[in-house]
Amino acid sequence: MSYEKREQLYEGKAKKVYATDDPNVVIVSYKDDATAFNGLKKGTIAGKGAINNRMTNNLMRRLEAAGVPTHYVEELNDRETAVKKVTIVPLEVIIRNISAGSFAKRYGVEEGIVFDEPTIELSYKNDDLGDPLMDGHHAIALKLATRDELRLIKDYSFRINDLLKGFMKEIGIDLVDFKLEFGKTADGTIVLADEISPDTCRLWDENTHEKLDKDRFRRDLGGAEEAYEEVMRRLMGDK
Amino acid sequence: MSYEKREQLYEGKAKKVYATDDPNVVIVSYKDDATAFNGLKKGTIAGKGAINNRMTNNLMRRLEAAGVPTHYVEELNDRETAVKKVTIVPLEVIIRNISAGSFAKRYGVEEGIVFDEPTIELSYKNDDLGDPLMDGHHAIALKLATRDELRLIKDYSFRINDLLKGFMKEIGIDLVDFKLEFGKTADGTIVLADEISPDTCRLWDENTHEKLDKDRFRRDLGGAEEAYEEVMRRLMGDK
Ligand SMILES: Nc1ncnc2c1ncn2[C@@H]1O[C@H](COP(=O)(O)OP(=O)(O)O)[C@@H](O)[C@H]1O
Ligand SMILES: Nc1ncnc2c1ncn2[C@@H]1O[C@H](COP(=O)(O)OP(=O)(O)O)[C@@H](O)[C@H]1O
Ligand SMILES: [Mg+2]
Ligand SMILES: [Mg+2]
Repeated sequence: MSYEKREQLYEGKAKKVYATDDPNVVIVSYKDDATAFNGLKKGTIAGKGAINNRMTNNLMRRLEAAGVPTHYVEELNDRETAVKKVTIVPLEVIIRNISAGSFAKRYGVEEGIVFDEPTIELSYKNDDLGDPLMDGHHAIALKLATRDELRLIKDYSFRINDLLKGFMKEIGIDLVDFKLEFGKTADGTIVLADEISPDTCRLWDENTHEKLDKDRFRRDLGGAEEAYEEVMRRLMGDK
Repeated sequence: MSYEKREQLYEGKAKKVYATDDPNVVIVSYKDDATAFNGLKKGTIAGKGAINNRMTNNLMRRLEAAGVPTHYVEELNDRETAVKKVTIVPLEVIIRNISAGSFAKRYGVEEGIVFDEPTIELSYKNDDLGDPLMDGHHAIALKLATRDELRLIKDYSFRINDLLKGFMKEIGIDLVDFKLEFGKTADGTIVLADEISPDTCRLWDENTHEKLDKDRFRRDLGGAEEAYEEVMRRLMGDK
């Protein structure tokens, strides 16, 4: 309520980050800009910023309620949210329940294989290097995280998967895979940061298997706006 | 002693594999052929086949003596060895003590960083896909190994690292990194297979830091033959 945007700290591919008068709080502002393939493909998905903002907040509040610490503080308006300022752990955590995307391509397998157990993988968050895959041992060796932090991050990620899978199943969606980022607050606590949205999750309608996520943009399938709106409508329960 | 080469089962980049009259035993025959960058660079290192054969056998016998099961059966001659026939687990296990090679390049760090703890990573042994990095969870999800097999393979790999580091240190060599392959015998036992040689290890002289391994060929440094011979001479103790 009392948070005001001060100087812009960072402009990323999908969001801007602003300082506030509270050194422990920043404001994230969601853009409609869409990128794919490490920024090689650029475009816009009208209305995406507002949807991703509200969807992220909805999901983070429910994760918090279930005991997962997040950076969420307060939704300020359609596109902007106050969050705890964190130092991002430069690792993208990817959880997969079903084969798709880069996984299917990298290992030469079809999309749609339902795994017996969810998988986890890390990639080094570094655009210049193309976000390369990185084993947890490497992350520790390069001091990107301690062994204990990494343990916690992996445990949270699997718990988040169980929870999100349930939230999505309630609205007729299969959670195929998703990417998470974690950060450290001023007092060293690891919390879930960044966003959870159709930009960062693969979401398939459980019946039609229609893609309700950024793959519509990545693969030029059309109907990206409608897909984002559909997920949002189901999530918010206003049919 | 009684093993005779029958039909050739496989010709790889560095070795040929022959059947014997014993269905549980094959003969590996080491070539002087050298390749790098997934076969893109080709050449010859004279005498390499005999050195890799004898060095692998020397090290595998010592690993066996220390309790690590291997495929080693009997050295037949300079280039040829009888080994237990296994079904290779299609995962390359890479252990690193010091940053070098593809690791340094992939993560944008210098070579020569000595890690606090050894790291382990897996890659999917598949030349067509370029041996991509693969998390253990993926290997299990794609049923390349069971959870228990993978646990055993990782445990063996770290034990092998401790042992090999010691063997190399005795002869003034730092073991930088190496690649292992494991296989399953007819009765389902996981054993160390393939080879341990300057083709599959990075070996640096502990004082001069001179490279005594296949990087001399990969990077056109010259003196590959002499480097392989030097490692062999030190290992065999005939100065
Ligand atoms: N709570 C937070 N505190 C500070 N930075 C954050 C927080 N949550 C996310 N970030 C970072 O802010 C940026 C969000 O913008 P985004 O457009 O996603 O950037 P990018 O192009 O780097 O992915 C990301 O770099 C993300 O890691
Ligand atoms: N004990 C064994 N039984 C069966 N195959 C083996 C055994 N040890 C190694 N191999 C396999 O034999 C081949 C050895 O030849 P190599 O030239 O190294 O092949 P590649 O080009 O596939 O690396 C490899 O594919 C390796 O996995
Ligand atoms: Mg981002
Ligand atoms: Mg080989």
